Amino acid sequence: MAQRLIVVGGDAAGMAAASQARRRRGRADLEIVAFERGHFTSYSACGIPYWISGVVPGRDQLIARDPATFRESFDVDVRLRHEVTGIDLDRREVVARDLDGDREVREGFDTLVYAAGAVPVTPSFARTDAMGVFGMQTLDDGEALRDWLESEPRPRHAVVVGGGYIGVEMAEALIQRGLVVTLVERADQPMSTVDADMAELVAEAMRGVGITIRTGLAVTGLQERDGRVTAVVTAEGPIPADVVVLGLGVRPNTALAEAAGLPLGPTGGIRVDRRMRVPGMPDVWAAGDCVESLHRVSGMPVHVPLGTHANKQGRIAGINIGGGYATFPGVIGTAVTKVCDLEVGRTGLRERDATAAGFEFVSVVAESTSRAGYYPGARPMTVKLIAERTSGRLLGAQIVGRSEAAKRIDTLAVALWNGMTVDEMTALDLGYAPPYAPVWDPVLVAARKAVDALSATTNRR
Amino acid sequence: MAQRLIVVGGDAAGMAAASQARRRRGRADLEIVAFERGHFTSYSACGIPYWISGVVPGRDQLIARDPATFRESFDVDVRLRHEVTGIDLDRREVVARDLDGDREVREGFDTLVYAAGAVPVTPSFARTDAMGVFGMQTLDDGEALRDWLESEPRPRHAVVVGGGYIGVEMAEALIQRGLVVTLVERADQPMSTVDADMAELVAEAMRGVGITIRTGLAVTGLQERDGRVTAVVTAEGPIPADVVVLGLGVRPNTALAEAAGLPLGPTGGIRVDRRMRVPGMPDVWAAGDCVESLHRVSGMPVHVPLGTHANKQGRIAGINIGGGYATFPGVIGTAVTKVCDLEVGRTGLRERDATAAGFEFVSVVAESTSRAGYYPGARPMTVKLIAERTSGRLLGAQIVGRSEAAKRIDTLAVALWNGMTVDEMTALDLGYAPPYAPVWDPVLVAARKAVDALSATTNRR
Repeated sequence: MAQRLIVVGGDAAGMAAASQARRRRGRADLEIVAFERGHFTSYSACGIPYWISGVVPGRDQLIARDPATFRESFDVDVRLRHEVTGIDLDRREVVARDLDGDREVREGFDTLVYAAGAVPVTPSFARTDAMGVFGMQTLDDGEALRDWLESEPRPRHAVVVGGGYIGVEMAEALIQRGLVVTLVERADQPMSTVDADMAELVAEAMRGVGITIRTGLAVTGLQERDGRVTAVVTAEGPIPADVVVLGLGVRPNTALAEAAGLPLGPTGGIRVDRRMRVPGMPDVWAAGDCVESLHRVSGMPVHVPLGTHANKQGRIAGINIGGGYATFPGVIGTAVTKVCDLEVGRTGLRERDATAAGFEFVSVVAESTSRAGYYPGARPMTVKLIAERTSGRLLGAQIVGRSEAAKRIDTLAVALWNGMTVDEMTALDLGYAPPYAPVWDPVLVAARKAVDALSATTNRR
Repeated sequence: MAQRLIVVGGDAAGMAAASQARRRRGRADLEIVAFERGHFTSYSACGIPYWISGVVPGRDQLIARDPATFRESFDVDVRLRHEVTGIDLDRREVVARDLDGDREVREGFDTLVYAAGAVPVTPSFARTDAMGVFGMQTLDDGEALRDWLESEPRPRHAVVVGGGYIGVEMAEALIQRGLVVTLVERADQPMSTVDADMAELVAEAMRGVGITIRTGLAVTGLQERDGRVTAVVTAEGPIPADVVVLGLGVRPNTALAEAAGLPLGPTGGIRVDRRMRVPGMPDVWAAGDCVESLHRVSGMPVHVPLGTHANKQGRIAGINIGGGYATFPGVIGTAVTKVCDLEVGRTGLRERDATAAGFEFVSVVAESTSRAGYYPGARPMTVKLIAERTSGRLLGAQIVGRSEAAKRIDTLAVALWNGMTVDEMTALDLGYAPPYAPVWDPVLVAARKAVDALSATTNRR
């Protein structure tokens, strides 16, 4: 008789697990049921800002694979609008609520994949019935915001709360739609995923397109009239807003997991072993934005909610469930983003992370160009490297540039992944041709500068 | 009393050596004299095709640093138009001819850097006085071609002999200038730096812009009238040409070195140790297009004439001459080029190289896109990976795409440099955001496909 796999959460991690398990085990061997609270499977949450701005014209373009594909090609029983409300590990049973039929279903399982994703951080002021306040995590969120932006009276003033990736991208999307946009960030810099010096370059570009940035300022409440938001409240007074977008980040969605006794780590994410198994829980797996991962540089657990990890982790869980062997070796914090006319990339540790992890380091910032200086379209690029004292090992890197910049972080990410020193990196055989790089690629220029900085440090010690 | 360093050849390698030595040793300690046959120091030969096409407007833009800079900022006695005609290692003396003054000069040295570069491979038929036949290695070559293209009667039919980087780039430059262009290549594919399947994509793009490609065909002679070339001769008949550009590659310029007793390796390049010293020759160094390098994957010596290596090697020689310590760990054959609307990247071994080195391998070709499929401007990209059987270690990679493709080879180059297996590579933490990559980057898609191919091979053995 077939065993049964239940997948909790039908987005990237869950569906990657389901399809990889299916590749290795046929229907007669493994029945697969996936419960998904929303209306969609496997969509690109990262694409939502581009749909809001109009750069991506339609919502359905963000859907990587629809439920029908999973049903037909992978023989996965996808149950949309089914919210799992309980997991009983002793009885090996999942309880779900059919949100449309308003009835409860119970399904037994042999194997469980917990892939419930993340939930937005929502401050108490935002738990309001006032119209015009939006999270930005699901396609439904995006749809609601788009409808609001097109409703009458037409919203004109937007406040984005939080200056992380989503906040920054949403601020740009809203200014592209012609709104007056203020970004409010509690910390003293937007884009806290990079160091302050690099973030300042990003802030300049945002101001350049007309976004007002207010840092060191917390939103403490909302003002509303007739059930519609009219302003956000701050210690420096209210900021008018007829649309408020929350970009305060997400936390692992672990309520059900915790209730079922799954172990959480220090980041609040579910703990998993290298194969994405939940330790001490036979045949229970977890993957995606609800788990914590090992940071390979700091050696500490981190919570990095990102589609690329969710896909990889889901795939690995699925391979293992399917009887194969695969492990997830951890993350190094690589991320890229487009901000106005800037490309931003980062990998490894920021200065503050390196300090927190106990490293002593030098950091250097090198200016260069994307192409040979004489080749048309060459644009400036700033590369920052952080290297451990004494060992010279690369600990982190950040890039800000105007074109052909963001994905250069991958070169640094692979160097960092392999524990290279900046001295070793100066010899790297990277592609050179005038349309693509100066004869010393910006990555090499930065590595050389880091070597010089290390040697100055060594001479002083 | 100051010692004296003589540099033979004032291009990338020689001048990098001179300036690095100067950084570490002042004038009172080290006098530096550099002899250069041509009119220029440190220019970008790789940029010449873009100057011919008009993409780069002026010749002087290709000059990275002019002689005055070296004289003033680095206190290097640069002697242009001085052709070194002899090196006497016993007497520690260099003999040079001042080409303009037509007189001979002799200078003693304590330390010698031989950086004479490479010379074009010139078949006997091309040793002609006929006008309209051009090599393409120096700025003088470029100047002569540009003058010819603008002379009357205006040349209309161009034949490019040889389908390597320079040949392909020159064919494109000439078609951009409105000529009728035929590329003749003796081998059965143009762009022999990549495997035939990838080269076919390049050939298609070239045909797409109107370049006629004739492969498997050798040029055996020239026809001329009134001292002007009129056609190239082939076994399949003459091809009309009022301009012929030779792109048959280069070989190490070692005549003087050989005469002086410097050891040459199997590639014909000068042998050097890890610090760029010539073995057995005290205080004699060599760098750049005249030396051979270790290929880190095959373990064999190779001759890779490329500005990026010349700069690195010159820098390393200079650091060591200056009393520092640096080594050149070899090359892996990374190269990128723009061909019509294609970007081409390669690193490591081609299939034929892998076979020649004794490897058994699998190779896979994966299709993907440069950005998230739904993001505007996403373009197709083809990634080929070659991985060793059993170990799964990456041996080589090739990329052809329409945008944001070429420099992705750097990611693969760093993975290859570090001896990663394709299985390890599937977990790499690469940058993901819709404007820059699909959630599975093309590099990861290809690595996954290689893992599958390896596992199929393993199961069969």
